[in-house]
Amino acid sequence: GSYTTSSQSSPVLLFRQLFEKESSTYTYLLADFSHPDKPALLIDPVDKTVDRDLSLVRELGLKLIYAMNTHVHADHVTGTGLIKGKVPGVKSVISKASGSKADVFVEPGDKICFGNLFLEVRATPGHTMGCVTYVTGDGPDQPQPRMAFTGDALLIRGCGRTDFQGGSSQQLYKSVHSQIFTLPKETLLYPAHDYKGFTVTTVGEEMLYNPRLTKDEETFKGIMQNLNLPYPKMIDVAVPANMVCGLQDLGSKAS
Amino acid sequence: GSYTTSSQSSPVLLFRQLFEKESSTYTYLLADFSHPDKPALLIDPVDKTVDRDLSLVRELGLKLIYAMNTHVHADHVTGTGLIKGKVPGVKSVISKASGSKADVFVEPGDKICFGNLFLEVRATPGHTMGCVTYVTGDGPDQPQPRMAFTGDALLIRGCGRTDFQGGSSQQLYKSVHSQIFTLPKETLLYPAHDYKGFTVTTVGEEMLYNPRLTKDEETFKGIMQNLNLPYPKMIDVAVPANMVCGLQDLGSKAS
Ligand SMILES: [Fe+2]
Ligand SMILES: [Fe+2]
Repeated sequence: GSYTTSSQSSPVLLFRQLFEKESSTYTYLLADFSHPDKPALLIDPVDKTVDRDLSLVRELGLKLIYAMNTHVHADHVTGTGLIKGKVPGVKSVISKASGSKADVFVEPGDKICFGNLFLEVRATPGHTMGCVTYVTGDGPDQPQPRMAFTGDALLIRGCGRTDFQGGSSQQLYKSVHSQIFTLPKETLLYPAHDYKGFTVTTVGEEMLYNPRLTKDEETFKGIMQNLNLPYPKMIDVAVPANMVCGLQDLGSKAS
Repeated sequence: GSYTTSSQSSPVLLFRQLFEKESSTYTYLLADFSHPDKPALLIDPVDKTVDRDLSLVRELGLKLIYAMNTHVHADHVTGTGLIKGKVPGVKSVISKASGSKADVFVEPGDKICFGNLFLEVRATPGHTMGCVTYVTGDGPDQPQPRMAFTGDALLIRGCGRTDFQGGSSQQLYKSVHSQIFTLPKETLLYPAHDYKGFTVTTVGEEMLYNPRLTKDEETFKGIMQNLNLPYPKMIDVAVPANMVCGLQDLGSKAS
């Protein structure tokens, strides 16, 4: 136990970006490092890298409280179920609109607090019907510039596909333009995936250089219709598993 | 041309971490974004990702002035030669101790300026005889916390091998302890490689959790002697190419 002279000090964000090579997924670790408990959350953890993520949490002395998903992933199995089994008390979080199981369901406008920091929930459907973007708080004590965790709604110079899981190119276009491109231009955008080795972008950059979302809506819809992508390799395993992400049967999982 | 009311404003660091999957190499882009010219440098660019890196430089409106290496790499071909061919005026930078060719040779204590920001050169031999660590400046207008680009001297929870290129485990131990672990504990450490999906660490973290460099010197030397690593796959191609990194024959390169 450390002695704290004031509980009023400004929060200090501890932030780590973590990469899972096979599915090219980014997992994000955020914590209020100035809070005595160092409360922390993970966004989009992957089952294969749960041990890596949890040792980092342990080494940094953090208290993991939430294991969150931006959406029901089709390309990897979420780590939230395993995490709940390994760290008692962690709550799984996903959007109510995802139709998936979890401990905490979030809706647009909700705030997810960790210490004196918080994330704001924005609905960004279109890649899946339940996609949300988590955005760091707006306020004097919150990180500047703001940071948005966009899942597969907006990727760096790209976006997620819209042909499965209740996807809709029209909806995705509206989501990105109304919920992401309206953030301050310097907002840092952290996607769930990158396939070219980029780690971050900004609202300003994507508004200028995103090859899909800078187009008008009709052109965008045409692009998304003609991607000719293969059937998602992992979808038949990943989606059923991820639909129950927060509540996997730990007995059978542990074996 | 933008009109600037004051040339005295504090510099703003633009920073991007970029990943090359095949060799698991991190390339770093740094620029003084508040300077009218937006002068920029790349640390450890890879030949295969030069086009990606240069389009990012172009899109961000930066003026690339330096293409730098932390050391003569044995696992990939540096991008500096290609960059010099594509962006006239860029100068290649490497340590004098590397014995390699380049436009600018740096020595311990040298400052590499870009706009109102600078990097300080620290000698960290042991992985190769010419390894240096580039550290952001110490001063009121320089980034806080400081950032150190450690090459292969210190990796996240690891370090580079010491059995080739004039390597020495004794020297590496001394380099890390005297040149890196003496930086403030919150200093962010950015390595040239990571194989587990980590992106950054800190001096404080490595002083506590680096499985090799927290040991005493004799134990460390024993660990390094018994790694039983395979012969470096790319060494016979990469090292000769990288020894002339700044001065490749552009005629033959372009074909
Ligand atoms: Fe997805
Ligand atoms: Fe190396």
